[in-house]
Amino acid sequence: MHELFSEERSADVVAASFAGTPDPRLRQVVTSLVRHLHAFVKDVELTEEEWAAAIDFLTRTGHTSDAVRQEFVLLSDVLGVSMLVETINHRSGGTGTESTVLGPFHQVESPERQLGDDIALDGKGAPCLVSGRVTGPDGEPLAGATVDVWQANADGFYDVQQPDVQPPGNLRGLFTADDDGRFWFRSVVPRWYPIPDDGPVGQLLAATGRHPNRPAHLHVIAAAPGYRPVTTHVFVADSPYLDSDAVFGVKESLVRDVPEVDDAERAAALGLPNPFRTLTVDVTLLRA
Amino acid sequence: MHELFSEERSADVVAASFAGTPDPRLRQVVTSLVRHLHAFVKDVELTEEEWAAAIDFLTRTGHTSDAVRQEFVLLSDVLGVSMLVETINHRSGGTGTESTVLGPFHQVESPERQLGDDIALDGKGAPCLVSGRVTGPDGEPLAGATVDVWQANADGFYDVQQPDVQPPGNLRGLFTADDDGRFWFRSVVPRWYPIPDDGPVGQLLAATGRHPNRPAHLHVIAAAPGYRPVTTHVFVADSPYLDSDAVFGVKESLVRDVPEVDDAERAAALGLPNPFRTLTVDVTLLRA
Repeated sequence: MHELFSEERSADVVAASFAGTPDPRLRQVVTSLVRHLHAFVKDVELTEEEWAAAIDFLTRTGHTSDAVRQEFVLLSDVLGVSMLVETINHRSGGTGTESTVLGPFHQVESPERQLGDDIALDGKGAPCLVSGRVTGPDGEPLAGATVDVWQANADGFYDVQQPDVQPPGNLRGLFTADDDGRFWFRSVVPRWYPIPDDGPVGQLLAATGRHPNRPAHLHVIAAAPGYRPVTTHVFVADSPYLDSDAVFGVKESLVRDVPEVDDAERAAALGLPNPFRTLTVDVTLLRA
Repeated sequence: MHELFSEERSADVVAASFAGTPDPRLRQVVTSLVRHLHAFVKDVELTEEEWAAAIDFLTRTGHTSDAVRQEFVLLSDVLGVSMLVETINHRSGGTGTESTVLGPFHQVESPERQLGDDIALDGKGAPCLVSGRVTGPDGEPLAGATVDVWQANADGFYDVQQPDVQPPGNLRGLFTADDDGRFWFRSVVPRWYPIPDDGPVGQLLAATGRHPNRPAHLHVIAAAPGYRPVTTHVFVADSPYLDSDAVFGVKESLVRDVPEVDDAERAAALGLPNPFRTLTVDVTLLRA
């Protein structure tokens, strides 16, 4: 005879119903979920009206999600869950470059580019030299490391959000580091932008007095054979929203100044106007 | 300057982002949700693959929900959350009849019927006299109390699930108690049945080794002016699944024997075949 439901023992009774789950990991996850979910409902003594509002919110979040829009990922993002999962699964141990969220705007195939190329195909924004070096934990240069980068344009949109406005591949590139692990390319200073806020998640942010904005950042995935790849951002130090990223992606170690350089000769050699801004992105990968 | 995200302080950092929520109750609920959600993710150290599977599960649950099917309610049911919310919001204090889940098959307008009517319009199942009395906490009869009842048919389906098979209003009725608070009607012995298990929630049950069945029951909503209405079930004592209801609705106090009566004279007076079964449903309402 199984134990019947009671308010006091609700989590134990429901957890017991999952005791026969064949896969031990699934059993662990679902049992923990039940315990935390019941603790939440008891903690706030959720009313029936609030429960119905939650059912409606989740349903609308599902209905807002389709092939190009993932509202549940956005919900996970603004609740800090995406960032927590990312951080738990990519602990850097204080030596490797820290990770942050991938975000929804990465493409499986970034266009391959040559060192020095200009990825700002739409000609908007403040010209910027991005350069850096990919090394291992002992400082060894990782020749041939790949560096995949993408960013929003000066209007705050990724190319995939504006297929009729931006050239395809605008502000994206897959670079291969030189023999010394170095890479460099031309771009523009990234801009802050709002996450899509016209759905249920935007309504949640509005109801809770939160803004939907992310501080200015460049996305980076760096990888080299024999090393653990890192998915991260570099944030612009003087961007608005740096201390209130809607998705909690900012880590202290990922913030960079983007100083202006006034050097006509160097600008001419790089193919940049003078003066120009510079963003340095050194990346340390841990061994696999 | 807000605190930046870290694994150790994740719940505090995200909770702080909701500190400006204008409505104090919404602030309380969302803050508690964040704390319990982060505790769950840390407890199991959720992997990125599991997170992606959860996003996919929630999205499919949303897409399975429409005007006539509510898969998130079903998910809440099988996780015991519906029952917990119901129980927290309708504590009977040990004197009133205990409540249980409403379920998805209630209709706003049950057909009004006369005492003694037969609600089994499809002629299937074991004939049964259902009778009872609605009283207040001191045993005072509640003359004119309304008793709204509904149940699945002998094949395990509600009329609304089989609009082309069952007569409309089959096994539903809204009765008015007599001057002594008594009501009685003819029906059939309720049968156990599975909840809809062809969607994501059914997949969850299958993956965790749980069956989708509910033990045999009659739904009851009893109400009288000046008293708190009660939404409950009466469960059939010898039904399968009584100790493993897929939605955790069973409470000890709601289980009833359904004995057979062999009394040709009484059967004839009631309009029932002899022998027939009897189900007694006495209801005690608390004062409003």
